[in-house]
Amino acid sequence: MKTYKELSKEELEALKKDLSAQYEDVKGKGLKLNMARGLPSAEQLDMEADFFNTLNPQSVFKSEAGIDCRNYGELIGIAEARKLMGDMMEVDPDNIIVFGNSSLNIMYDTVCRSVVHGVCGSTPWCKLDKVKFLCPVPGYDRHFAITEQFGIEMINIPMKADGPDMDLVEQYVNNDAAVKGIWCVPKYSNPQGITYSEEVCKRMAALKPAAEDFRIFWDNAYTIHHLYDDKQDNLPEIMNLCAQAGNPDMVYKFCSTSKVTFPGSGVAAMAASTKNIEFIKKIITIQTIGHDKLNQLRHVRYFGSFDGMVQHMKKHAAILRPKFELVLSELEKELGGLGIGEWTKPIGGYFVSFQAMEGCAKEIVAKCKDLGVTLTGAGATYPYKKDPMDSNIRIAPTFPPIDELAEALKVFVLAVKLTSVEKLLA
Amino acid sequence: MKTYKELSKEELEALKKDLSAQYEDVKGKGLKLNMARGLPSAEQLDMEADFFNTLNPQSVFKSEAGIDCRNYGELIGIAEARKLMGDMMEVDPDNIIVFGNSSLNIMYDTVCRSVVHGVCGSTPWCKLDKVKFLCPVPGYDRHFAITEQFGIEMINIPMKADGPDMDLVEQYVNNDAAVKGIWCVPKYSNPQGITYSEEVCKRMAALKPAAEDFRIFWDNAYTIHHLYDDKQDNLPEIMNLCAQAGNPDMVYKFCSTSKVTFPGSGVAAMAASTKNIEFIKKIITIQTIGHDKLNQLRHVRYFGSFDGMVQHMKKHAAILRPKFELVLSELEKELGGLGIGEWTKPIGGYFVSFQAMEGCAKEIVAKCKDLGVTLTGAGATYPYKKDPMDSNIRIAPTFPPIDELAEALKVFVLAVKLTSVEKLLA
Repeated sequence: MKTYKELSKEELEALKKDLSAQYEDVKGKGLKLNMARGLPSAEQLDMEADFFNTLNPQSVFKSEAGIDCRNYGELIGIAEARKLMGDMMEVDPDNIIVFGNSSLNIMYDTVCRSVVHGVCGSTPWCKLDKVKFLCPVPGYDRHFAITEQFGIEMINIPMKADGPDMDLVEQYVNNDAAVKGIWCVPKYSNPQGITYSEEVCKRMAALKPAAEDFRIFWDNAYTIHHLYDDKQDNLPEIMNLCAQAGNPDMVYKFCSTSKVTFPGSGVAAMAASTKNIEFIKKIITIQTIGHDKLNQLRHVRYFGSFDGMVQHMKKHAAILRPKFELVLSELEKELGGLGIGEWTKPIGGYFVSFQAMEGCAKEIVAKCKDLGVTLTGAGATYPYKKDPMDSNIRIAPTFPPIDELAEALKVFVLAVKLTSVEKLLA
Repeated sequence: MKTYKELSKEELEALKKDLSAQYEDVKGKGLKLNMARGLPSAEQLDMEADFFNTLNPQSVFKSEAGIDCRNYGELIGIAEARKLMGDMMEVDPDNIIVFGNSSLNIMYDTVCRSVVHGVCGSTPWCKLDKVKFLCPVPGYDRHFAITEQFGIEMINIPMKADGPDMDLVEQYVNNDAAVKGIWCVPKYSNPQGITYSEEVCKRMAALKPAAEDFRIFWDNAYTIHHLYDDKQDNLPEIMNLCAQAGNPDMVYKFCSTSKVTFPGSGVAAMAASTKNIEFIKKIITIQTIGHDKLNQLRHVRYFGSFDGMVQHMKKHAAILRPKFELVLSELEKELGGLGIGEWTKPIGGYFVSFQAMEGCAKEIVAKCKDLGVTLTGAGATYPYKKDPMDSNIRIAPTFPPIDELAEALKVFVLAVKLTSVEKLLA
């Protein structure tokens, strides 16, 4: 089989004619499919049918410590919820704060707090001329949106097969005191599904930041979101590594049950060193009296323990696995060997990352949209929505039912082919 | 009957001896009672027994618009929740954003947003040398704690019988561009139970602020929290008044169901002009993907409509009314005519405000504590916790069962008497 680049102009023209005809056919169907965001599917949400019975009989609203979870209080979460999230995050419950329904909100507030109040006594970032964050790319668009909103300068750090380019990370963090943070999705990363290697984690923990208020924002969103029982990535526990390296306060960990129970109605938590936690508590005690303890109680009752959560994730995997396998088999079947795209083959998380020929991503997404398939906007996986190569596309296969996903993928590969041919002919 | 001030030194000494003996008696009992905060009682929380059945059968997770409330999205809340909260707040649903479980959190974030991002395009407050807030006193301690945390200078505005001293408010707001806000609990105020008169509301709406980014923070926490069916305060709708006065963007309203359903597991909302709402949406869309829609749905299903909420509040009133009546009758019986204290007689809300002789509040609270009764800290109702007269004490009668409340009140009046005698003898 020839790659597209090996085709003659005439062969490309013929191919273009054929693909364009297919394009018009599909367009005529008036599809309306969505692969834009990493939403769980209805089938996944349906699994939690018993969830709302965990607070029946209604008399049982007391926490293990005898706290009436319907009333005010418990700023950092009830003890058993901190235990559950601590087990999930591999951190002692004393170093856990359970918040509301969104880890994104915790991260936003954590950046905001640093901007207004500083970090454990450091100068508030709003008083500094310049604050910079390192952004492994491609990465999570909502992370980049946070730092952009606060006027923080974002610096692209290329992702390698085992995590961010650590030479570059060390160079920036250890020499530039304006670098205050790095966004990390260390396990089954968004969008590539890459898990940071032990070496990367150790180098991360051993950073010697020029800024005392530098923090690693360790968003372990997919920590137990495996697709397989027998093939799973392992991620070293970063707080331990940091402590061992003499940097006990350098990392914040974030996690939630948004893709364990319900997006929007899960519980989210943060883990950090005692020094960090004490500082954060002093600030947030003015922000709220406490988060939704009944929802914390529901989670504890529903799962019983972290092991219950792990078992539960196997049911999610059973729904998601065929979708990911369909994506990979379809891409391989339709695009394998053509030299017009590469893609990741994750064994967990919520995304597949597709690398098109340079300068093609926007056009592919536009063509898909024209054909009724919504993808994450091209560029979204980069700070300022600027993919310097215009190449990366995030595929989010989780939400559509599998037959719709199959249809959407057909549209996608068609758009990739036609765009690539047009590019080669241009 | 003589007031304490009319007693001779010998009479006071005899009284002191008698009261001190009572004091030692009570101390021997080892009481442990709490009237510190405005918590609903267990009896109130028990009323909501059916609340958690509103999402059974489990298949019914769809909003009226067909949105699966278990999944991500709906930043500003589902339509029917905005309708419910809009009815509660007397504002069009288009001008409502439903947030998470805490109106305090909304207020905090609203101040924080102004500090970091400004107000509808104005200079962020963190870039200004000085920002000031007006604080009607006595007032809500958690309001003052927010402005204190952001380094905002707080200015005491005395409360009169019909609301804040508007001469003073006008003088500050209309002449000092550093004055950016005023904290208001306009109905059944915390702690006095005062409802702002129509004249006060109209003067408030007709302010001519020197600062374009001045906003009224209208925390209508007790809007439907009446104690009686036949005696209820009415509060004019402030957004309308502001619009009529040519100040459509000058007010933010806040409200929640914390004391309608559950503190910590209610829903909270904000109302504002379209211009304000659009600006706020632009900021918060980066902060979160959305709040807990299942809890919004629970509220809508449980109450059916705003009328259902109003009916429900009568059940709260039935529990709270005897407690307030006990407070007032006990104060009257024990302290009436003695000239050593005055108190408010609210017909709604969560508090009674007690004004002791000057310089006595701290000592009364300390004595109560010594006898096992926890009150809100003296001074808490003033910015920086500094009551210039050391006189105001907030009584929070809602939480204790009525027999414990009776016991706590006996301790309170004893402490008031003894402290007053000691003061007069000093």
